[in-house]
Amino acid sequence: MQFHNPKNLAISVVLEATELLEHFQWKSPEQSEAHAIKARDEIADEIADVAVYLIELADNLGIDLERAILGKLEKNAAKYPIEKAKGSSKKYTEL
Amino acid sequence: MQFHNPKNLAISVVLEATELLEHFQWKSPEQSEAHAIKARDEIADEIADVAVYLIELADNLGIDLERAILGKLEKNAAKYPIEKAKGSSKKYTEL
Amino acid sequence: MQFHNPKNLAISVVLEATELLEHFQWKSPEQSEAHAIKARDEIADEIADVAVYLIELADNLGIDLERAILGKLEKNAAKYPIEKAKGSSKKYTEL
Amino acid sequence: MQFHNPKNLAISVVLEATELLEHFQWKSPEQSEAHAIKARDEIADEIADVAVYLIELADNLGIDLERAILGKLEKNAAKYPIEKAKGSSKKYTEL
Repeated sequence: MQFHNPKNLAISVVLEATELLEHFQWKSPEQSEAHAIKARDEIADEIADVAVYLIELADNLGIDLERAILGKLEKNAAKYPIEKAKGSSKKYTEL
Repeated sequence: MQFHNPKNLAISVVLEATELLEHFQWKSPEQSEAHAIKARDEIADEIADVAVYLIELADNLGIDLERAILGKLEKNAAKYPIEKAKGSSKKYTEL
Repeated sequence: MQFHNPKNLAISVVLEATELLEHFQWKSPEQSEAHAIKARDEIADEIADVAVYLIELADNLGIDLERAILGKLEKNAAKYPIEKAKGSSKKYTEL
Repeated sequence: MQFHNPKNLAISVVLEATELLEHFQWKSPEQSEAHAIKARDEIADEIADVAVYLIELADNLGIDLERAILGKLEKNAAKYPIEKAKGSSKKYTEL
């Protein structure tokens, strides 16, 4: 679609990301945690909105998103070896 | 980690999303397309930065990100049946 | 300037706003207050960056920014009469 | 107010800035200009929303916003002397 150029898709990523953030506006860290549990479905929906535009942008640019994510997680693991030790990056490779 | 609460992770999603958008600041749609080709690796890196925080936030909240994305794509397909006909949603299910 | 169209100026407002927010990323409310005191000059600089693009956008669109702000403050005062009683909106009229 | 800490106010600046940007989502530069004329009042309202939070944040931190803006404009004028020659910064000093 003609308006689905990279700039517009990047704008949409930002706009959806701020709709996600809106859930936590004015909330303390504790209230954020409580709200996240109560509104998990709505938040899952907002997260998915951001993800869908990321996927569309990657697709539009011929970027292999999975490889990009794995590359990033490896870089992070090299930078923060403790995280690696905790194995927290492992689960993402199964995405 | 104590500061990796949902609010802070949502802020990080927004901040990484705007670093992605920064690539296209002041550019016309045509310049954006040209830039995206030239700077594909850097842009892939920015997209991955957003994705990693989305994954971390979903993980933090016990959200099944893949299911959330698929649910969203199905809703979109129902709303915009032409997109469905083009099969554009199919590839995402293979993510 | 040709690229100073409303869309690009609005993007710049967002990008500068997130540079401002970046100051508080990962900080607790208490740490944010402490940081804001310590880094007041840098934060003043970021606030001014946002303001300059807002001014430029208003100028670009022939909007009387001062009047728009006053109108908004009056609406808010009508909605939240307690704020009005505290006189907190008064100081803005002197901007 | 207790939740009007600098971090939350900075989040609100970002959220209002993206509501402003939302006006131009999916629009070409030309469509943005046309929309801006047609929806000038709504856009003025969004600009004012961003400005009000900027003012509140500056106020919260004891920042002299007018001075910060003037300082910024002077720096910009020194960096981009042509802008200065056009006198474009002059009108802002009258804000």
